[in-house]
Amino acid sequence: MKPIAPSDLLDNLNWRYATKGFDATRKIAPELWTTIEKATTLAPSSYGLQPWRFVVVNNPETRATLKGVSWNQPQITDASHLIVFCRKLEVTPADVDAYIEDISRTRNVPASALDGFKKMMLGSIASPASLSGGSMHEWTSRQVYIALGFFLSACANLGVDACPMEGFDASKYDQILGLTAQGYGATVVATAGYRSIADPIAAMKKVRFPLERTVKHV
Amino acid sequence: MKPIAPSDLLDNLNWRYATKGFDATRKIAPELWTTIEKATTLAPSSYGLQPWRFVVVNNPETRATLKGVSWNQPQITDASHLIVFCRKLEVTPADVDAYIEDISRTRNVPASALDGFKKMMLGSIASPASLSGGSMHEWTSRQVYIALGFFLSACANLGVDACPMEGFDASKYDQILGLTAQGYGATVVATAGYRSIADPIAAMKKVRFPLERTVKHV
Repeated sequence: MKPIAPSDLLDNLNWRYATKGFDATRKIAPELWTTIEKATTLAPSSYGLQPWRFVVVNNPETRATLKGVSWNQPQITDASHLIVFCRKLEVTPADVDAYIEDISRTRNVPASALDGFKKMMLGSIASPASLSGGSMHEWTSRQVYIALGFFLSACANLGVDACPMEGFDASKYDQILGLTAQGYGATVVATAGYRSIADPIAAMKKVRFPLERTVKHV
Repeated sequence: MKPIAPSDLLDNLNWRYATKGFDATRKIAPELWTTIEKATTLAPSSYGLQPWRFVVVNNPETRATLKGVSWNQPQITDASHLIVFCRKLEVTPADVDAYIEDISRTRNVPASALDGFKKMMLGSIASPASLSGGSMHEWTSRQVYIALGFFLSACANLGVDACPMEGFDASKYDQILGLTAQGYGATVVATAGYRSIADPIAAMKKVRFPLERTVKHV
């Protein structure tokens, strides 16, 4: 690993802003986009179950349709890339089995050595009220938001602009992208690309509470 | 801004793992920890409202007490730092007013120029069912998870180990840290520090679904 200088990290994160005005002529290079995808999948999730799917919408007609159910926000069509962060609707015992097999194969350990871990996961999904957020829906949604954080942070560190978006009709996204039938649900959206030189927000100072207000030491 | 080489970013994120065994003798240097705090507060949130507080627990006795309501997980006391990510219990019209004033002051624009934005925020918090997650509780929790993503990503890029944790009794944390009276609720926890050379998990290969399974292009 190769740590970044602390001041570089803060510079990169201060450079980041929720880009509303993208330069529609600039595309993220394919290899760079793949890096962003990989960085996103390296986010942690509860037990490592990865209860998510990330749908990258390239088709211009589909993007135009999605814009119509996203308050007509121009980023949806202007940005280089549109990514829909989806949660898995149900995490089932079969998912746990497949995950245990994956660990066993990847790490070359007998599945039997993972029995305690497996029972813990099965117990958790059998009582959704015990999960973080109190339901499977919220538990998986929260994991998806960790991935969103990794995505946005990766973009900033790679010099790519991005905009996280909650202002969209999730059930319409589910329909348009056929997500429900695949067992997923649209949870949060992001666009990525390069800021337009005409975007006045880019030059504005970031608004944050002072550190002493947000972080308390006890 | 100073973009990182894509391969360095992926190396750093692959180096990251949910550290269970911390070296209890190693502390994160104060300036480095402050950088991590700042990086975390640079996470985006819905409208930029920052409906969160991050409580860093330094007191050893408090940490021992919290360990007892965290399934006795050793990270709680062994790690260099313990941070409790809290959501704001209610985002009120007064919060919106204060935020508008903050923007106005920071960016030197008249508050009246922000009237449309203000009305949008007031409308959102007045109808919590319209918020992401369908309630104020879940909406703010999801924002907190973005901050968790920024925190973990910052740690990885700075060469600091960390462990996100959902396995704790949130209502007990609220009591022990007196959070409810301050208007906050414990949502997710993380520990940070340096991995113990004795932690066998550190050397294990990361388990992730193949990229083609997790990311779909349409």
